[in-house]
Amino acid sequence: MTDTAFIRRLNASDADFSQQLEQLLSWESVSDDSVNQRVLDIIAAVRQQGDAALVEFTRQFDGLEVAEMGDLILPRERLEAALDKITPEQRQALEAAAERVRNYHEHQQQDSWQYTEANGTVLGQKVTPLDRAGLYVPGGKASYPSSVLMNAIPAKVAGVPEVVMVVPTPRGEINELVLAAAAVAGVDRVFTIGGAQAVAALAYGTESVPAVDKIVGPGNIYVATAKRHVFGKVGIDMIAGPSEILVVCDGQTDPDWIAMDLFSQAEHDEDAQAILVSPDADFIEQVAQSMARLLPTLEREEIARTSVRERGALIVVEDMQQAIEVANQIAPEHLELSVADPESLLPQIRHAGAIFMGRYTAEALGDYCAGPNHVLPTSGTARFSSPLGVYDFQKRSSIINCSPQGASELGKIASVLARGESLTAHARSAEYRIQPDQEQ
Amino acid sequence: MTDTAFIRRLNASDADFSQQLEQLLSWESVSDDSVNQRVLDIIAAVRQQGDAALVEFTRQFDGLEVAEMGDLILPRERLEAALDKITPEQRQALEAAAERVRNYHEHQQQDSWQYTEANGTVLGQKVTPLDRAGLYVPGGKASYPSSVLMNAIPAKVAGVPEVVMVVPTPRGEINELVLAAAAVAGVDRVFTIGGAQAVAALAYGTESVPAVDKIVGPGNIYVATAKRHVFGKVGIDMIAGPSEILVVCDGQTDPDWIAMDLFSQAEHDEDAQAILVSPDADFIEQVAQSMARLLPTLEREEIARTSVRERGALIVVEDMQQAIEVANQIAPEHLELSVADPESLLPQIRHAGAIFMGRYTAEALGDYCAGPNHVLPTSGTARFSSPLGVYDFQKRSSIINCSPQGASELGKIASVLARGESLTAHARSAEYRIQPDQEQ
Repeated sequence: MTDTAFIRRLNASDADFSQQLEQLLSWESVSDDSVNQRVLDIIAAVRQQGDAALVEFTRQFDGLEVAEMGDLILPRERLEAALDKITPEQRQALEAAAERVRNYHEHQQQDSWQYTEANGTVLGQKVTPLDRAGLYVPGGKASYPSSVLMNAIPAKVAGVPEVVMVVPTPRGEINELVLAAAAVAGVDRVFTIGGAQAVAALAYGTESVPAVDKIVGPGNIYVATAKRHVFGKVGIDMIAGPSEILVVCDGQTDPDWIAMDLFSQAEHDEDAQAILVSPDADFIEQVAQSMARLLPTLEREEIARTSVRERGALIVVEDMQQAIEVANQIAPEHLELSVADPESLLPQIRHAGAIFMGRYTAEALGDYCAGPNHVLPTSGTARFSSPLGVYDFQKRSSIINCSPQGASELGKIASVLARGESLTAHARSAEYRIQPDQEQ
Repeated sequence: MTDTAFIRRLNASDADFSQQLEQLLSWESVSDDSVNQRVLDIIAAVRQQGDAALVEFTRQFDGLEVAEMGDLILPRERLEAALDKITPEQRQALEAAAERVRNYHEHQQQDSWQYTEANGTVLGQKVTPLDRAGLYVPGGKASYPSSVLMNAIPAKVAGVPEVVMVVPTPRGEINELVLAAAAVAGVDRVFTIGGAQAVAALAYGTESVPAVDKIVGPGNIYVATAKRHVFGKVGIDMIAGPSEILVVCDGQTDPDWIAMDLFSQAEHDEDAQAILVSPDADFIEQVAQSMARLLPTLEREEIARTSVRERGALIVVEDMQQAIEVANQIAPEHLELSVADPESLLPQIRHAGAIFMGRYTAEALGDYCAGPNHVLPTSGTARFSSPLGVYDFQKRSSIINCSPQGASELGKIASVLARGESLTAHARSAEYRIQPDQEQ
């Protein structure tokens, strides 16, 4: 018998289960004062000195011997060239994934609409894309081509005319797959800068870097802190917490499959969270055995082992009903319903970033190429937020076009309410539009 | 000739116009360290002591002699009773406005969707409402019944089962119109608490106040700071800056109408911003004359005068084309197109919270009863954000249900990309689903 004590067991019927679960899920990311101050200093320097500050910070933080800003700009042709530097198999996979992601996101298109009332008043909603979007891509090991696809394609589908990407190249290390993904996704311009300085450049603009309207994409604590600080000047996406998966299994899926699905989250980083819920206590132990056997075979064994030990859990529940309750309480980023009839459970799922249905739908398929976005709400924020999508790169404007008669009728209502709020200039502005013959 | 020097003139053809405009628009709201620390202390106290802290802070900050939490709860019947305490005319106006707001927002409903691929794989998007929304309503003079309608109705249209409202009643001052609006809008529960303590209670819950998933509604600097701090634990709406209007006029609207439209923003508060753009320099001076004549007749004269002096402007442009460029540069919260043919300008408007088309569509009509929401992006954030809407009270979950064949095909793509990212547990999880006869 292998030792399977490396992952905790919980029982949903225990009296203190709710507290145990809350404890397990608890996660707070705090930017300490020194990080905050450094980021504020960097932002101020970029606002004041523009390109010169970018060059200096890049020499300092990325160990790059650059002389001028021109050395930090990759033209579109350089992206195209990357397509020839990767293997044909990789290029094909990137293009197939991009095609599927594009197709799915086209279903998210929102149309403008309007309707006309009996008196001729027109009301509506106009949908327009952002003028320019900025995409942050981390450098080094966390530099993921799939992230480029997932962030840039929805912007392009939304109709954003210009997508600007920043990606640091520490010590000159360029990831050809990332550049190839940028070419495939239709990224318009790339700057090889990173950190808080890249976020500041995108938010405020420099001589070379154009100011954008929204910044998306993952990054380290400096990037996340900088995004928080520039929010308001520009839009930002959610600040993501560690990745998580909740697998709900009826006990009939191959335990090795479930073990590897859990590891596919756990290998991300030590803080990632992988949880299995099942009504079958024996099955849970089979999965634990699989995990014990497979762990030593993983390339990223140490990361996965730490993640599973510190934040993982195998939870036994009384029945599927209780499993669903646990899922709704967690509001997971990724929810895998590894059961015979996932459709029957779906109506009861209230909160999840993405739902992977059935034994064949491994979460990893969604990470790369199923079509839906892999940028998803973490840490329970699926209770109130959504996957990254086309809607994040568009905004709406309300349209009101009152006919003379409509304005007259609405003016009377507005007048009463405005006077009830003691806003009499509002009232008088409305009253000017009341037609004399209707005043009675 | 009246003195009209109380409002600045700008000319869009001046060489330094862009800088002048930027200067005029610049606005930064900063929570200083002492506000931050007080808010953090209040949040910590509410998390630790729950109801007891709410009672204590309400005695302290609102000057209310309450003995226990029960004194701070208004049952639904109390809201209904308010409907009889206001005038029949007010009740009728509230109900007519609510009906129109509800009708408009029903057009924003989003449907879940899914599609099936040739191999049987199903992809989709499931839309669900939040479980519970919290609505902050300021007390005292800034307590606006119209805000209750505009915040609560979209939540109810979205299908949110429970809308919880908080409204402070300083020195026991209850605004019957606000309670009546809550009754009309379908608010489920009301607590007479306010400030950072109310925000903390909604975010974390107490013995009496249920934790919500999202907090919306305007408030003072303590409320705004508290919302920033609880963001992540719950969703929040935009932190609003001062209200603004940009009127674009061809010079053919009654100058008194335009003057009063500008005042209807300026009377909000000293920081509000009212700007007129016109190609007709004579008309601009006529509006200035109207403003000079009407200002002394306003109930909120001093507020409007300060707002207009400090932040207002009359801008002359060369033609309508330049007017549109100025509008897009400002990205105003409210844009009034007071021209003969507003439809012809609409396609060129890229950024605005709400667009009021034609001479009859006073902005004040939109504040109360036209139908669209009056919670709109301020300070240029219309470049990347939208009016409050039904979509703010719903979230989406991606749906992926792979057929065995679909999983096999996707598994091959995912495997290549995952190995390209050195995430081999991802690759192996996908590879388990590749069918042997397709492996070649």
